[in-house]
Amino acid sequence: MGLLVQKFGGSSLKSIERIQRAAKRIAQEVDEGHQLVIVVSAMGDTTDHLTDMAKTITPFPHPREMDQLLATGEQVSMALLCMALHQHGVKAVSLTGWQAGIITEDVHTEADIVEVQQEKILSHVEKGRVVVVAGFQGVTGDGEVTTIGRGGSDTTAVVLAAALGAERCDILTDVDGVYTADPRIVPHARPLPHICYDEMLALSRLGAHVLHPRAVACAMQNRVPLIVRSSFHEADGTRITETRATRSAIPVSGIACMEHLVNVTLALTKREPTVVNRLTAVAAHSSLVRDKGTRELSFLIKREHVPKLSAMLSEFKGSVERVDYEYDKALLSVVGAEADNPDIVSTVEEQLHRASIKGKSVTTSRHSVSCLICQEDVMKAANALHQAFDLDKAKEAVLQVSQFQ
Amino acid sequence: MGLLVQKFGGSSLKSIERIQRAAKRIAQEVDEGHQLVIVVSAMGDTTDHLTDMAKTITPFPHPREMDQLLATGEQVSMALLCMALHQHGVKAVSLTGWQAGIITEDVHTEADIVEVQQEKILSHVEKGRVVVVAGFQGVTGDGEVTTIGRGGSDTTAVVLAAALGAERCDILTDVDGVYTADPRIVPHARPLPHICYDEMLALSRLGAHVLHPRAVACAMQNRVPLIVRSSFHEADGTRITETRATRSAIPVSGIACMEHLVNVTLALTKREPTVVNRLTAVAAHSSLVRDKGTRELSFLIKREHVPKLSAMLSEFKGSVERVDYEYDKALLSVVGAEADNPDIVSTVEEQLHRASIKGKSVTTSRHSVSCLICQEDVMKAANALHQAFDLDKAKEAVLQVSQFQ
Repeated sequence: MGLLVQKFGGSSLKSIERIQRAAKRIAQEVDEGHQLVIVVSAMGDTTDHLTDMAKTITPFPHPREMDQLLATGEQVSMALLCMALHQHGVKAVSLTGWQAGIITEDVHTEADIVEVQQEKILSHVEKGRVVVVAGFQGVTGDGEVTTIGRGGSDTTAVVLAAALGAERCDILTDVDGVYTADPRIVPHARPLPHICYDEMLALSRLGAHVLHPRAVACAMQNRVPLIVRSSFHEADGTRITETRATRSAIPVSGIACMEHLVNVTLALTKREPTVVNRLTAVAAHSSLVRDKGTRELSFLIKREHVPKLSAMLSEFKGSVERVDYEYDKALLSVVGAEADNPDIVSTVEEQLHRASIKGKSVTTSRHSVSCLICQEDVMKAANALHQAFDLDKAKEAVLQVSQFQ
Repeated sequence: MGLLVQKFGGSSLKSIERIQRAAKRIAQEVDEGHQLVIVVSAMGDTTDHLTDMAKTITPFPHPREMDQLLATGEQVSMALLCMALHQHGVKAVSLTGWQAGIITEDVHTEADIVEVQQEKILSHVEKGRVVVVAGFQGVTGDGEVTTIGRGGSDTTAVVLAAALGAERCDILTDVDGVYTADPRIVPHARPLPHICYDEMLALSRLGAHVLHPRAVACAMQNRVPLIVRSSFHEADGTRITETRATRSAIPVSGIACMEHLVNVTLALTKREPTVVNRLTAVAAHSSLVRDKGTRELSFLIKREHVPKLSAMLSEFKGSVERVDYEYDKALLSVVGAEADNPDIVSTVEEQLHRASIKGKSVTTSRHSVSCLICQEDVMKAANALHQAFDLDKAKEAVLQVSQFQ
């Protein structure tokens, strides 16, 4: 059997008891003959706790020191998980980002991984050891510790799986897989047995939190099969591969939602590309920046990014004539293999109309139809669309992809 | 003005507020024109907390993973201290042990530092930055993270001061300096303005907790002047240098005490040097192993080391005929430049006799006279000796050493 990379998220490691449970599960995989590289997040809310300490000292901690600080979170969980593996008689070693040879660009807090020097990891794997790698972190060529941004451990896992030629990459988390919709919004949502990279990428970009879009894009680019599954039980979870499951009648895979958005409309005195780029960099979704002629610009930002945008606007105040903020907006998206099909677009519009929901505009991309609605209509709209596209019944309609390609 | 190394202990960094206070103090030193390398311990009881988590998983955590785990403690405090320094407008960078080039031997949990590759630290210092180094940790030539044992941050500071040719090394702590005796035992104890390396080494080895003997030995070997002082106020603290303060009448500098000891007497079936060495390695003080003929051996161990010794004895049970444990012992020592002077030895014996305290044996070394007493007599004996050697009045009698040599 080949090499697997498995990522355990923070909620799967949030206490000693959960770390021990993760170790037990890994020990079973070892017994089954797998070679394993494990990627860990920080325990529970450790990253938030460290961030809070830093913010008590200064509202704008230096990014370099922030990385030095945050990198400790994953180091604690990797060492404790190794100890728990030893208790199961499993040979295991932990490696920090720099020890594992995860080389990033020279940028702090949101660095991209540029290379994995895999010799160290492979030399341990060849000696029959489980290698536990600290996710979310890397090192520059100059020995500076970097982190790769929120959700970074998923990306670490996928990058390692690609670099090591792993059979697949498992993302072990606190949910059962990728759902047809957020179960807190749509009570009938259910886990998808299978979804293709393109659709998963659309779901992630449009608000599904289960996987970071960067991790999905990296898996797609390197054709790394992904499984998102629960770390607490043995259910199959969701397989994410290149192949699309053959569907009889259901062209839609899921519904994604970005909540609590602010619709910003800017009138500029003149159009300067650097100003436009800086201002739209805070957009919640880059493909949703709408250019309304040469001097008007409209985009969605997350509510918490309003202060950041305001600060930028005061910096560029000579270039900005007028700003409108429309609060309490949400972006509801229908994701599917051929979501740009006119039938789907018209179904979405018809459903919203029937439910008396005003959708300001319907933007489409190849795998998604999105519409901007009011926050208060999210539940009603999402449930209506979920039902209209038969997503609550879809389990039987989706032919299982029996084997990975 | 030259380069100073300053070490801040865990109690001086145990909260964000204390870290901010330390930063303020460092900022003042920078304003005065000093170049500074700061060595930090983990915040407060972080090391104990991390150790407790590990022990919940296994009573015997793997030393390699223990080092990976514990190294995070100092990394948190170094990053937070840098952020606090930035708030004072001080340019500061943090470096972990491996980043700072602190190379140790390939041993876990109690490694010796074998080399400091000082280029990285010096390049930052030359750019006018305060360098904050994580104490207690290093790295092997193979990139394995190591720690250098309890009290290790003191040693890191002294080793760095020696390697960087620092003017002196300040140990900033929660006490005012090196005391004539432990103030919890002797209420009239007072901080010494000055003490020489030899005497400080004897005090540390014989139970004074303020400095680790390894750090003192390293300072002595490299002639690094040390100051032990409070991190909370501006008092001068205790200077530790090669030169002895000229004393008019007081030949004794202080009284040290090791409490809660167990006196172990072993009868061996035959004398095997490896067995003797292994068994006496747990002795509280190596020079106190008393050889009572070829087959009998007596030494003191700390109460908490009894299980460790028992485990060893069962390993060597063929070689051991009989074991006696005498509990509730303490070793009280008088330390001074010429403590082996017969007058001092007889004063010690006379004082103990006068106070009706049985001292089992009086062992002497060049800078100390030690006697084994019962734990219950510690207060009475220590106070009697403190008074007999005029230590409570000594402030006036000690000529201040006005300048460092």
